[in-house]
Amino acid sequence: MQLYIGNQNYSTWSLRAWLIFDNYNLNPEVIKLKLFTSDFYDTLAKVTPTAKVPTLVDGDVAVWDSLAILEYVNDAHLDGAAWPKSTKERARARAISAEMHSGFFAVRNEMPMNCRAQRKLSLSEDALKDIARIDVIWSTQMEQYPEGWLFGEWSIADAMFAPVALRVETYGIQLSEKASRYQQRVLNSTSIQKWLAEASLETDVVEEDEAGETV
Amino acid sequence: MQLYIGNQNYSTWSLRAWLIFDNYNLNPEVIKLKLFTSDFYDTLAKVTPTAKVPTLVDGDVAVWDSLAILEYVNDAHLDGAAWPKSTKERARARAISAEMHSGFFAVRNEMPMNCRAQRKLSLSEDALKDIARIDVIWSTQMEQYPEGWLFGEWSIADAMFAPVALRVETYGIQLSEKASRYQQRVLNSTSIQKWLAEASLETDVVEEDEAGETV
Repeated sequence: MQLYIGNQNYSTWSLRAWLIFDNYNLNPEVIKLKLFTSDFYDTLAKVTPTAKVPTLVDGDVAVWDSLAILEYVNDAHLDGAAWPKSTKERARARAISAEMHSGFFAVRNEMPMNCRAQRKLSLSEDALKDIARIDVIWSTQMEQYPEGWLFGEWSIADAMFAPVALRVETYGIQLSEKASRYQQRVLNSTSIQKWLAEASLETDVVEEDEAGETV
Repeated sequence: MQLYIGNQNYSTWSLRAWLIFDNYNLNPEVIKLKLFTSDFYDTLAKVTPTAKVPTLVDGDVAVWDSLAILEYVNDAHLDGAAWPKSTKERARARAISAEMHSGFFAVRNEMPMNCRAQRKLSLSEDALKDIARIDVIWSTQMEQYPEGWLFGEWSIADAMFAPVALRVETYGIQLSEKASRYQQRVLNSTSIQKWLAEASLETDVVEEDEAGETV
Protein backbone atom coordinates (compact mmCIF):
# COMPACT_ATOMS: atom_id res chain seq x y z
CA MET A 1 0.00 0.00 0.00
CA GLN A 2 1.12 3.53 -0.76
CA LEU A 3 -0.24 6.37 1.33
CA TYR A 4 0.31 9.82 -0.20
CA ILE A 5 0.36 12.62 2.36
CA GLY A 6 1.26 16.32 2.45
CA ASN A 7 3.50 18.30 4.79
CA GLN A 8 3.08 16.81 8.23
CA ASN A 9 3.29 20.24 9.83
CA TYR A 10 0.18 21.41 8.01
CA SER A 11 -1.90 18.65 6.47
CA THR A 12 -4.78 17.77 8.78
CA TRP A 13 -6.47 15.38 6.36
CA SER A 14 -3.19 13.51 5.85
CA LEU A 15 -2.85 13.10 9.61
CA ARG A 16 -6.38 11.69 9.91
CA ALA A 17 -5.73 8.95 7.35
CA TRP A 18 -2.17 8.25 8.56
CA LEU A 19 -3.39 7.59 12.10
CA ILE A 20 -5.32 4.42 11.28
CA PHE A 21 -2.21 2.89 9.67
CA ASP A 22 0.00 3.85 12.58
CA ASN A 23 -2.53 2.73 15.16
CA TYR A 24 -2.83 -0.77 13.70
CA ASN A 25 0.80 -1.10 12.54
CA LEU A 26 -0.22 -1.48 8.93
CA ASN A 27 3.02 0.08 7.63
CA PRO A 28 2.10 1.43 4.21
CA GLU A 29 4.81 3.06 2.12
CA VAL A 30 4.30 6.71 3.04
CA ILE A 31 4.97 9.10 0.16
CA LYS A 32 5.22 12.66 1.40
CA LEU A 33 4.63 15.41 -1.17
CA LYS A 34 5.24 19.10 -0.53
CA LEU A 35 1.87 20.83 -0.63
CA PHE A 36 1.16 23.01 -3.66
CA THR A 37 4.41 22.19 -5.53
CA SER A 38 4.38 20.96 -9.13
CA ASP A 39 5.76 17.62 -7.92
CA PHE A 40 2.69 17.33 -5.66
CA TYR A 41 0.24 17.80 -8.53
CA ASP A 42 2.23 15.77 -11.07
CA THR A 43 2.61 12.78 -8.75
CA LEU A 44 -1.01 12.77 -7.60
CA ALA A 45 -2.36 13.21 -11.13
CA LYS A 46 -0.99 9.75 -11.88
CA VAL A 47 -2.88 8.03 -9.07
CA THR A 48 -6.01 10.05 -8.25
CA PRO A 49 -8.69 12.03 -10.11
CA THR A 50 -8.72 14.86 -7.57
CA ALA A 51 -5.01 15.57 -6.91
CA LYS A 52 -5.58 15.85 -3.19
CA VAL A 53 -3.97 14.29 -0.17
CA PRO A 54 -4.41 11.90 1.44
CA THR A 55 -4.71 9.30 -1.29
CA LEU A 56 -4.28 5.58 -0.71
CA VAL A 57 -3.25 3.15 -3.41
CA ASP A 58 -3.76 -0.50 -2.44
CA GLY A 59 -2.98 -2.71 -5.42
CA ASP A 60 -5.56 -1.77 -8.06
CA VAL A 61 -7.69 0.19 -5.57
CA ALA A 62 -7.27 3.96 -5.27
CA VAL A 63 -9.08 5.85 -2.52
CA TRP A 64 -9.01 9.63 -2.23
CA ASP A 65 -10.54 11.50 0.73
CA SER A 66 -9.63 10.89 4.36
CA LEU A 67 -12.95 9.51 5.60
CA ALA A 68 -13.23 7.16 2.62
CA ILE A 69 -9.68 5.91 3.33
CA LEU A 70 -10.52 5.33 6.99
CA GLU A 71 -13.70 3.43 6.06
CA TYR A 72 -11.82 1.45 3.40
CA VAL A 73 -8.98 0.37 5.70
CA ASN A 74 -11.49 -0.56 8.40
CA ASP A 75 -13.50 -2.53 5.86
CA ALA A 76 -10.72 -4.21 3.84
CA HIS A 77 -7.97 -4.70 6.42
CA LEU A 78 -9.39 -4.50 9.94
CA ASP A 79 -12.65 -6.44 9.73
CA GLY A 80 -14.52 -3.50 11.22
CA ALA A 81 -12.29 -3.07 14.30
CA ALA A 82 -11.88 0.69 13.84
CA TRP A 83 -15.49 1.54 14.65
CA PRO A 84 -17.10 0.84 18.04
CA LYS A 85 -18.57 -2.64 18.40
CA SER A 86 -22.11 -1.59 19.36
CA THR A 87 -24.43 -0.44 16.57
CA LYS A 88 -25.57 2.47 18.68
CA GLU A 89 -22.06 3.69 19.41
CA ARG A 90 -21.06 3.15 15.78
CA ALA A 91 -23.95 5.41 14.79
CA ARG A 92 -22.77 8.13 17.16
CA ALA A 93 -19.13 7.75 16.11
CA ARG A 94 -20.11 8.07 12.46
CA ALA A 95 -22.31 11.10 13.18
CA ILE A 96 -19.53 13.06 14.91
CA SER A 97 -16.98 11.95 12.29
CA ALA A 98 -19.29 13.15 9.52
CA GLU A 99 -19.75 16.43 11.41
CA MET A 100 -15.98 16.92 11.29
CA HIS A 101 -15.74 15.77 7.68
CA SER A 102 -18.24 18.27 6.33
CA GLY A 103 -18.21 21.04 8.91
CA PHE A 104 -16.37 23.11 11.50
CA PHE A 105 -15.36 25.49 8.70
CA ALA A 106 -14.54 28.40 11.00
CA VAL A 107 -12.01 26.34 12.98
CA ARG A 108 -10.61 24.90 9.77
CA ASN A 109 -10.26 28.31 8.11
CA GLU A 110 -9.12 30.44 11.02
CA MET A 111 -6.91 27.93 12.82
CA PRO A 112 -4.80 26.08 10.25
CA MET A 113 -2.90 23.16 11.73
CA ASN A 114 0.67 24.34 12.27
CA CYS A 115 2.31 21.76 14.53
CA ARG A 116 5.56 23.60 15.23
CA ALA A 117 4.03 27.02 16.03
CA GLN A 118 2.80 28.66 19.21
CA ARG A 119 0.39 31.41 18.23
CA LYS A 120 -2.24 33.76 19.49
CA LEU A 121 -5.23 34.90 17.45
CA SER A 122 -8.66 36.45 17.78
CA LEU A 123 -11.38 34.06 16.79
CA SER A 124 -14.70 34.85 15.14
CA GLU A 125 -17.97 34.02 16.86
CA ASP A 126 -18.37 31.10 14.46
CA ALA A 127 -14.98 29.66 15.44
CA LEU A 128 -15.87 29.98 19.12
CA LYS A 129 -19.13 28.16 18.45
CA ASP A 130 -17.22 25.39 16.65
CA ILE A 131 -14.87 25.04 19.60
CA ALA A 132 -17.78 24.96 22.05
CA ARG A 133 -19.43 22.18 20.03
CA ILE A 134 -16.17 20.18 19.91
CA ASP A 135 -15.81 20.67 23.65
CA VAL A 136 -19.30 19.20 24.16
CA ILE A 137 -18.50 16.23 21.91
CA TRP A 138 -15.25 15.45 23.71
CA SER A 139 -16.51 16.01 27.24
CA THR A 140 -19.70 14.00 26.66
CA GLN A 141 -17.59 11.05 25.53
CA MET A 142 -15.19 11.51 28.47
CA GLU A 143 -18.12 11.24 30.87
CA GLN A 144 -18.81 7.82 29.43
CA TYR A 145 -15.19 6.75 28.97
CA PRO A 146 -13.13 8.67 31.54
CA GLU A 147 -9.98 6.67 30.86
CA GLY A 148 -10.15 5.95 27.16
CA TRP A 149 -10.52 7.29 23.67
CA LEU A 150 -13.78 8.87 22.51
CA PHE A 151 -15.50 5.48 22.52
CA GLY A 152 -13.19 3.68 24.93
CA GLU A 153 -11.14 1.78 22.34
CA TRP A 154 -9.44 3.89 19.66
CA SER A 155 -11.74 4.49 16.68
CA ILE A 156 -11.98 6.42 13.43
CA ALA A 157 -13.67 9.22 15.40
CA ASP A 158 -10.36 9.79 17.24
CA ALA A 159 -8.59 10.08 13.90
CA MET A 160 -11.12 12.61 12.66
CA PHE A 161 -10.70 14.88 15.70
CA ALA A 162 -6.93 14.52 16.22
CA PRO A 163 -5.93 17.66 14.26
CA VAL A 164 -8.19 19.73 16.52
CA ALA A 165 -6.21 18.55 19.55
CA LEU A 166 -3.08 19.94 17.87
CA ARG A 167 -4.74 23.24 16.99
CA VAL A 168 -5.89 23.67 20.59
CA GLU A 169 -2.22 23.42 21.58
CA THR A 170 -0.86 25.75 18.88
CA TYR A 171 -3.38 28.50 19.54
CA GLY A 172 -3.62 28.10 23.33
CA ILE A 173 -7.39 27.43 23.34
CA GLN A 174 -9.09 26.92 26.71
CA LEU A 175 -11.30 23.87 27.00
CA SER A 176 -13.41 22.43 29.79
CA GLU A 177 -11.58 20.12 32.18
CA LYS A 178 -12.96 16.93 30.62
CA ALA A 179 -12.33 18.01 27.02
CA SER A 180 -8.85 19.15 27.98
CA ARG A 181 -8.14 15.76 29.48
CA TYR A 182 -9.00 14.13 26.15
CA GLN A 183 -6.96 16.69 24.21
CA GLN A 184 -3.89 15.95 26.35
CA ARG A 185 -4.38 12.23 25.89
CA VAL A 186 -4.37 12.66 22.10
CA LEU A 187 -1.31 14.90 22.29
CA ASN A 188 0.63 12.44 24.42
CA SER A 189 -0.26 9.36 22.37
CA THR A 190 2.58 7.48 20.70
CA SER A 191 1.15 8.08 17.23
CA ILE A 192 0.84 11.83 17.62
CA GLN A 193 4.29 12.12 19.19
CA LYS A 194 5.70 10.23 16.21
CA TRP A 195 3.84 12.49 13.76
CA LEU A 196 5.07 15.62 15.60
CA ALA A 197 8.67 14.38 15.56
CA GLU A 198 8.47 13.85 11.81
CA ALA A 199 6.74 17.21 11.29
CA SER A 200 9.41 18.98 13.31
CA LEU A 201 12.04 18.01 10.72
CA GLU A 202 10.22 19.95 8.01
CA THR A 203 11.38 23.45 7.16
CA ASP A 204 8.96 24.42 4.36
CA VAL A 205 6.62 27.29 5.08
CA VAL A 206 3.13 27.41 3.55
CA GLU A 207 2.20 31.07 3.95
CA GLU A 208 -1.58 30.58 3.81
CA ASP A 209 -1.38 28.22 6.80
CA GLU A 210 0.55 30.66 8.97
CA ALA A 211 -2.04 32.40 11.14
CA GLY A 212 -1.89 34.50 14.31
CA GLU A 213 0.89 36.23 16.21
CA THR A 214 3.86 34.26 17.51
CA VAL A 215 3.87 34.11 21.31
CA MET B 1 -37.93 5.28 13.17
CA GLN B 2 -38.45 8.98 12.75
CA LEU B 3 -36.71 10.78 9.89
CA TYR B 4 -36.67 14.57 10.24
CA ILE B 5 -36.35 16.39 6.94
CA GLY B 6 -36.63 19.97 5.65
CA ASN B 7 -38.61 21.44 2.73
CA GLN B 8 -38.53 18.88 -0.04
CA ASN B 9 -38.23 21.62 -2.65
CA TYR B 10 -34.92 22.80 -1.22
CA SER B 11 -33.25 20.37 1.19
CA THR B 12 -30.60 18.36 -0.67
CA TRP B 13 -29.26 16.60 2.41
CA SER B 14 -32.78 15.56 3.42
CA LEU B 15 -33.28 14.04 -0.02
CA ARG B 16 -30.03 12.05 0.23
CA ALA B 17 -31.05 10.40 3.50
CA TRP B 18 -34.70 9.93 2.49
CA LEU B 19 -33.70 8.00 -0.63
CA ILE B 20 -32.29 5.00 1.21
CA PHE B 21 -35.54 4.57 3.13
CA ASP B 22 -37.66 4.88 0.02
CA ASN B 23 -35.41 2.61 -2.03
CA TYR B 24 -35.63 -0.23 0.50
CA ASN B 25 -39.24 0.41 1.59
CA LEU B 26 -38.18 1.03 5.17
CA ASN B 27 -41.10 3.40 5.82
CA PRO B 28 -39.89 5.60 8.66
CA GLU B 29 -42.23 8.22 10.06
CA VAL B 30 -41.17 11.28 8.04
CA ILE B 31 -41.39 14.52 10.01
CA LYS B 32 -41.11 17.50 7.71
CA LEU B 33 -40.05 20.78 9.28
CA LYS B 34 -40.07 24.13 7.49
CA LEU B 35 -36.45 25.26 7.13
CA PHE B 36 -35.31 28.13 9.35
CA THR B 37 -38.60 28.48 11.28
CA SER B 38 -38.66 28.46 15.08
CA ASP B 39 -40.60 25.18 14.97
CA PHE B 40 -37.68 23.70 12.98
CA TYR B 41 -35.11 24.65 15.62
CA ASP B 42 -37.34 23.87 18.61
CA THR B 43 -38.25 20.41 17.37
CA LEU B 44 -34.71 19.45 16.36
CA ALA B 45 -33.21 20.76 19.60
CA LYS B 46 -35.12 17.99 21.37
CA VAL B 47 -33.57 15.18 19.31
CA THR B 48 -30.19 16.33 17.97
CA PRO B 49 -27.18 18.33 19.17
CA THR B 50 -26.77 20.18 15.86
CA ALA B 51 -30.33 21.22 14.93
CA LYS B 52 -29.83 20.22 11.31
CA VAL B 53 -31.75 18.05 8.89
CA PRO B 54 -31.73 15.24 8.14
CA THR B 55 -31.78 13.62 11.56
CA LEU B 56 -32.80 10.04 12.18
CA VAL B 57 -34.14 8.76 15.48
CA ASP B 58 -34.23 4.98 15.74
CA GLY B 59 -35.27 3.99 19.25
CA ASP B 60 -32.50 5.27 21.50
CA VAL B 61 -30.17 6.00 18.58
CA ALA B 62 -30.00 9.48 17.09
CA VAL B 63 -27.99 10.09 13.93
CA TRP B 64 -27.46 13.55 12.47
CA ASP B 65 -25.73 14.12 9.10
CA SER B 66 -26.82 12.55 5.82
CA LEU B 67 -23.79 10.33 5.16
CA ALA B 68 -23.82 9.03 8.74
CA ILE B 69 -27.53 8.20 8.38
CA LEU B 70 -26.89 6.37 5.10
CA GLU B 71 -24.03 4.38 6.67
CA TYR B 72 -26.13 3.67 9.77
CA VAL B 73 -29.17 2.39 7.86
CA ASN B 74 -26.91 0.27 5.65
CA ASP B 75 -25.18 -1.08 8.75
CA ALA B 76 -28.11 -1.59 11.12
CA HIS B 77 -30.99 -2.41 8.75
CA LEU B 78 -29.65 -3.58 5.39
CA ASP B 79 -26.75 -5.83 6.29
CA GLY B 80 -24.45 -3.85 4.00
CA ALA B 81 -26.66 -4.07 0.90
CA ALA B 82 -26.48 -0.35 0.12
CA TRP B 83 -22.79 -0.38 -0.83
CA PRO B 84 -21.40 -2.37 -3.79
CA LYS B 85 -20.52 -5.97 -2.98
CA SER B 86 -16.89 -5.86 -4.13
CA THR B 87 -14.35 -4.28 -1.78
CA LYS B 88 -12.79 -2.38 -4.67
CA GLU B 89 -16.08 -0.92 -5.85
CA ARG B 90 -17.06 -0.13 -2.28
CA ALA B 91 -13.83 1.84 -1.95
CA ARG B 92 -14.61 3.82 -5.10
CA ALA B 93 -18.24 4.38 -4.08
CA ARG B 94 -17.12 5.68 -0.69
CA ALA B 95 -14.50 7.93 -2.28
CA ILE B 96 -16.98 9.66 -4.61
CA SER B 97 -19.60 9.85 -1.84
CA ALA B 98 -17.04 11.49 0.46
CA GLU B 99 -16.11 13.89 -2.34
CA MET B 100 -19.76 14.98 -2.48
CA HIS B 101 -20.09 15.09 1.30
CA SER B 102 -17.19 17.46 1.85
CA GLY B 103 -16.85 19.24 -1.48
CA PHE B 104 -18.42 20.66 -4.63
CA PHE B 105 -18.96 23.92 -2.77
CA ALA B 106 -19.38 26.04 -5.89
CA VAL B 107 -22.23 23.89 -7.17
CA ARG B 108 -23.76 23.78 -3.71
CA ASN B 109 -23.53 27.55 -3.22
CA GLU B 110 -24.39 28.81 -6.69
CA MET B 111 -27.00 26.22 -7.65
CA PRO B 112 -29.31 25.65 -4.69
CA MET B 113 -31.70 22.76 -5.21
CA ASN B 114 -35.04 24.25 -6.20
CA CYS B 115 -37.13 21.40 -7.55
CA ARG B 116 -40.08 23.41 -8.87
CA ALA B 117 -38.04 26.10 -10.69
CA GLN B 118 -36.66 26.44 -14.21
CA ARG B 119 -33.82 28.95 -14.07
CA LYS B 120 -30.89 30.35 -15.96
CA LEU B 121 -27.69 31.57 -14.29
CA SER B 122 -24.07 32.39 -15.02
CA LEU B 123 -21.75 30.03 -13.24
CA SER B 124 -18.30 30.73 -11.85
CA GLU B 125 -15.25 28.89 -13.14
CA ASP B 126 -15.25 26.86 -9.92
CA ALA B 127 -18.84 25.74 -10.47
CA LEU B 128 -18.02 24.76 -14.06
CA LYS B 129 -15.07 22.74 -12.75
CA ASP B 130 -17.34 21.02 -10.21
CA ILE B 131 -19.80 20.13 -12.97
CA ALA B 132 -16.99 18.84 -15.19
CA ARG B 133 -15.77 16.61 -12.36
CA ILE B 134 -19.30 15.28 -11.69
CA ASP B 135 -19.67 14.62 -15.41
CA VAL B 136 -16.47 12.54 -15.33
CA ILE B 137 -17.67 10.58 -12.28
CA TRP B 138 -21.04 9.81 -13.82
CA SER B 139 -19.82 9.02 -17.32
CA THR B 140 -16.97 6.82 -16.05
CA GLN B 141 -19.50 4.75 -14.10
CA MET B 142 -21.86 4.63 -17.08
CA GLU B 143 -19.08 3.15 -19.21
CA GLN B 144 -18.89 0.32 -16.72
CA TYR B 145 -22.62 0.02 -16.05
CA PRO B 146 -24.42 1.32 -19.15
CA GLU B 147 -27.82 0.17 -17.96
CA GLY B 148 -27.66 0.61 -14.23
CA TRP B 149 -27.03 2.93 -11.35
CA LEU B 150 -23.52 4.27 -10.64
CA PHE B 151 -22.37 0.82 -9.53
CA GLY B 152 -24.99 -1.28 -11.31
CA GLU B 153 -27.24 -1.89 -8.32
CA TRP B 154 -28.52 1.20 -6.48
CA SER B 155 -26.06 2.34 -3.78
CA ILE B 156 -25.45 5.13 -1.30
CA ALA B 157 -23.38 6.85 -4.01
CA ASP B 158 -26.60 7.33 -6.01
CA ALA B 159 -28.23 8.94 -2.98
CA MET B 160 -25.28 11.30 -2.56
CA PHE B 161 -25.41 12.55 -6.17
CA ALA B 162 -29.21 12.62 -6.63
CA PRO B 163 -29.65 16.34 -5.79
CA VAL B 164 -27.15 17.21 -8.53
CA ALA B 165 -29.37 15.47 -11.08
CA LEU B 166 -32.20 17.78 -10.01
CA ARG B 167 -30.00 20.89 -10.18
CA VAL B 168 -28.90 19.96 -13.70
CA GLU B 169 -32.59 19.99 -14.67
CA THR B 170 -33.49 23.23 -12.88
CA TYR B 171 -30.58 25.22 -14.30
CA GLY B 172 -30.52 23.60 -17.76
CA ILE B 173 -26.90 22.38 -17.47
CA GLN B 174 -25.39 20.58 -20.48
CA LEU B 175 -23.70 17.27 -19.71
CA SER B 176 -21.93 14.70 -21.85
CA GLU B 177 -24.17 12.06 -23.42
CA LYS B 178 -23.26 9.36 -20.89
CA ALA B 179 -23.61 11.62 -17.85
CA SER B 180 -26.89 12.93 -19.20
CA ARG B 181 -28.18 9.40 -19.55
CA TYR B 182 -27.50 8.80 -15.85
CA GLN B 183 -29.05 12.12 -14.91
CA GLN B 184 -32.25 11.24 -16.77
CA ARG B 185 -32.34 7.83 -15.15
CA VAL B 186 -32.18 9.44 -11.70
CA LEU B 187 -34.85 11.95 -12.65
CA ASN B 188 -37.22 9.28 -13.94
CA SER B 189 -36.79 6.93 -11.01
CA THR B 190 -39.83 6.13 -8.90
CA SER B 191 -38.24 7.57 -5.75
CA ILE B 192 -37.33 10.91 -7.32
CA GLN B 193 -40.75 11.22 -8.98
CA LYS B 194 -42.36 10.61 -5.60
CA TRP B 195 -40.09 13.22 -3.93
CA LEU B 196 -40.86 15.76 -6.69
CA ALA B 197 -44.59 15.17 -6.37
CA GLU B 198 -44.40 15.83 -2.62
CA ALA B 199 -42.13 18.86 -3.16
CA SER B 200 -44.56 20.32 -5.70
CA LEU B 201 -47.23 20.62 -2.99
CA GLU B 202 -45.05 23.01 -0.98
CA THR B 203 -45.63 26.74 -1.30
CA ASP B 204 -43.01 28.14 1.08
CA VAL B 205 -40.26 30.25 -0.45
CA VAL B 206 -36.76 30.27 1.06
CA GLU B 207 -35.26 33.42 -0.46
CA GLU B 208 -31.62 32.40 -0.09
CA ASP B 209 -32.26 29.29 -2.18
CA GLU B 210 -33.84 31.21 -5.05
CA ALA B 211 -31.05 31.72 -7.60
CA GLY B 212 -30.96 32.73 -11.26
CA GLU B 213 -33.51 34.17 -13.69
CA THR B 214 -36.77 32.39 -14.38
CA VAL B 215 -36.90 31.04 -17.92
